[in-house]
Amino acid sequence: MVKSIHSYMSDMKTQIEQEMKSTLADLNTPASLKDSMLYSLLAGGKRLRPILMMASFHTFQQQENKVLKSAIALEMIHTYSLVHDDLPAMDNDDYRRGELTNHKQFNEATAILAGDALLTHSFELVAGDSLLTSEEKVFILKEMADASGPEEMIAGQMLDMEGENKSLTIEELEKIHLHKTGALIRFAIITGAYLGQASKDQLHYLNDFAYYLGLIFQVQDDILDVIGDPEKLGKPVGSDMENVKSTYPSLLGLEGAKEKKAAYSQKAEDALEQANAKDSYLRELLHFFSQREY
Amino acid sequence: MVKSIHSYMSDMKTQIEQEMKSTLADLNTPASLKDSMLYSLLAGGKRLRPILMMASFHTFQQQENKVLKSAIALEMIHTYSLVHDDLPAMDNDDYRRGELTNHKQFNEATAILAGDALLTHSFELVAGDSLLTSEEKVFILKEMADASGPEEMIAGQMLDMEGENKSLTIEELEKIHLHKTGALIRFAIITGAYLGQASKDQLHYLNDFAYYLGLIFQVQDDILDVIGDPEKLGKPVGSDMENVKSTYPSLLGLEGAKEKKAAYSQKAEDALEQANAKDSYLRELLHFFSQREY
Repeated sequence: MVKSIHSYMSDMKTQIEQEMKSTLADLNTPASLKDSMLYSLLAGGKRLRPILMMASFHTFQQQENKVLKSAIALEMIHTYSLVHDDLPAMDNDDYRRGELTNHKQFNEATAILAGDALLTHSFELVAGDSLLTSEEKVFILKEMADASGPEEMIAGQMLDMEGENKSLTIEELEKIHLHKTGALIRFAIITGAYLGQASKDQLHYLNDFAYYLGLIFQVQDDILDVIGDPEKLGKPVGSDMENVKSTYPSLLGLEGAKEKKAAYSQKAEDALEQANAKDSYLRELLHFFSQREY
Repeated sequence: MVKSIHSYMSDMKTQIEQEMKSTLADLNTPASLKDSMLYSLLAGGKRLRPILMMASFHTFQQQENKVLKSAIALEMIHTYSLVHDDLPAMDNDDYRRGELTNHKQFNEATAILAGDALLTHSFELVAGDSLLTSEEKVFILKEMADASGPEEMIAGQMLDMEGENKSLTIEELEKIHLHKTGALIRFAIITGAYLGQASKDQLHYLNDFAYYLGLIFQVQDDILDVIGDPEKLGKPVGSDMENVKSTYPSLLGLEGAKEKKAAYSQKAEDALEQANAKDSYLRELLHFFSQREY
């Protein structure tokens, strides 16, 4: 931990983006499909999920080559989910991060196929990673399919759609978040620690840590939609209220949401301590997630 | 080879469909998503791809448990590709095999997610198959991601879309087919033989066999669209001509298409002989593919 968290995040982001470019450069696929995949993959974004995976790895090991391809695979899955979520039949968004969404830049059919391609290629990347043993590949592929599959991320997306324009309880809201965003965050942290050779006990506590971190991410997201600075966020605020969406502030009030976040942060800190991983970038990232303004 | 090919196919189909039902019965996912996945998965179909995988396995081994989950995974991938292909933005089909397509039966968003879920879950199935070693899982997962990914099946779908309303050369037409349908057929045969412990040489020749079998499948598909019996096919014929689609008969004439099929059949027979696998259901399936009327 010689670097500040901001310079660590920036360094990891650079590595991740370089690796993504070089990985896809050799992909032998029709130019239009490749353009569409690269467009969404390189359309910016904070790369929080792959950075989390790398930080979890770095909690136990120094050299990061071993985790890099898995981190790219994770970002591909996250990107595919955004491309499909943006489609007219789903959220029908024209812009993401200030740029046209994939189906607006290309067309709907291309966006569907580019999403499918990013998802499928993520499995190929891990299965073909020459730095991993067969056991490691199987562990990661199983966790990845589970986290992004019908029992986790896709379940969350389905529940989210079904919950639109309904008033949800806090339990229902958290169930959606734990599936829709929590599962990939958990996958990031478990995979990083596993490849870093954390013990079984450590993995257990890091799983708890990831659980709370995922919720904190979402509480802060909801809070920022109320009191965030549109300049820093790069998007307008107040859309949840406009869409009558159930959120932490709408269910608990702004103060209640902040208290919830503080309680989860304490639990995340505790889990990190039990994992004997307090002196790590994971802890810095916990603070970043909880206090981020963008 | 004690059974006729028809009773073999029927027995395998029963096993595959039973295994699909029991595999998905325990899936813990929102009811609407599960219904949508099951709807398309159990909407009939000849199950040719998983049957090919099982026949390839049976060429070398008797007991089929070891290949069953991989065969299901393959059928899930095939089904996902149909669900997405049928979407309004793609082929915009309202019916498939006489039933409403997934997005007509449910809605477009659900169909997109059900397709994503079938694709993702196929990887989980193989990664979690307790009858396979880690090495076997990695081999299959890599081949599966490759065959269904942006360099193979999705490339074929993209090329197919881009080739619509254009007149293609026979080389361009075959490139589309080799990617769009050929890759999964090749995956079926290679995976079955690999799990059956075929030798490296045998896998090499079976790869050639699969190449020609995939093309024969498509030539016959095109021929049936000209001279097939709509009753037996369960769908109207003549749609290729109506849509001014490039096909084997449109490029080579009906007789030319039949000659092409005969030439490919000979090459497939030769490859099977070189693989020392002539006395097998694979050979029966070759004849079935080449002469099928539905």
